[in-house]
Amino acid sequence: MPPSENTHRDVPRTVECTVIGTIRTPYKRLSDCPKTVHDNPALCTLVLDHAFADGLFGLEHESHVLVLYWLDQARRDWLRRPARSDREELGVFALRTPNRPNPIAATVAPVVRVEGNCVEVRGLDCLDGTPLLDIKRAIFFDAG
Amino acid sequence: MPPSENTHRDVPRTVECTVIGTIRTPYKRLSDCPKTVHDNPALCTLVLDHAFADGLFGLEHESHVLVLYWLDQARRDWLRRPARSDREELGVFALRTPNRPNPIAATVAPVVRVEGNCVEVRGLDCLDGTPLLDIKRAIFFDAG
Repeated sequence: MPPSENTHRDVPRTVECTVIGTIRTPYKRLSDCPKTVHDNPALCTLVLDHAFADGLFGLEHESHVLVLYWLDQARRDWLRRPARSDREELGVFALRTPNRPNPIAATVAPVVRVEGNCVEVRGLDCLDGTPLLDIKRAIFFDAG
Repeated sequence: MPPSENTHRDVPRTVECTVIGTIRTPYKRLSDCPKTVHDNPALCTLVLDHAFADGLFGLEHESHVLVLYWLDQARRDWLRRPARSDREELGVFALRTPNRPNPIAATVAPVVRVEGNCVEVRGLDCLDGTPLLDIKRAIFFDAG
């Protein structure tokens, strides 16, 4: 392995993401949100701010998208999930927990409809009003 | 569809990500980087800042990770990729191009080794020294 110290210059300590829109979901409280995306066929809508809507051009031809969104209710100071009787202790980078230094969720979702500045998809697990960061053509798919 | 205007309150216009480390790759210039992750078996190393290394606990049991990283050389003001004779015009959200409002790359990579604050993986496509944002247990896999 290379030296374990980061000796690269010019690496910023933080980077700023632009919130490009919000996600409308049926979930008004964290306790409403499904625990996994697998048991969750709900219709959700990615509502882009109008300034970014042109970036959707051609998306209606895609069957699935990878959606990146910001889980603003998450704890950012956890590095391990505590052990419980029913689960082992694990580092946050070995998990999908929202509680992590950068709470960016990444979910592959089927596209139902694209219209204007909106994309209807199925199966997101986040609160209504969650900040949207990115949409990408899906090149990988959920392995279940 | 719901109303296309974003009427949700309390949505920030930007969010701040913490750079948790850097990625060491063989690619010193953009012209060295592979065009896709498919033709690219190179060993790369995720070097976490020591403050975040504890989040790797247990990761050695995973076969693949989803790596999120920040493509700091990208153009953030593009919403469409221009048409050329060999390709159609498309919006950036229908593409995987680095040039997008939030240049967060998302790649599923096989784990080779975890040691201390480093994770060796195969097949990333980014410049040496690229800022690392997140590592997640992979739940989906490349279909390409």
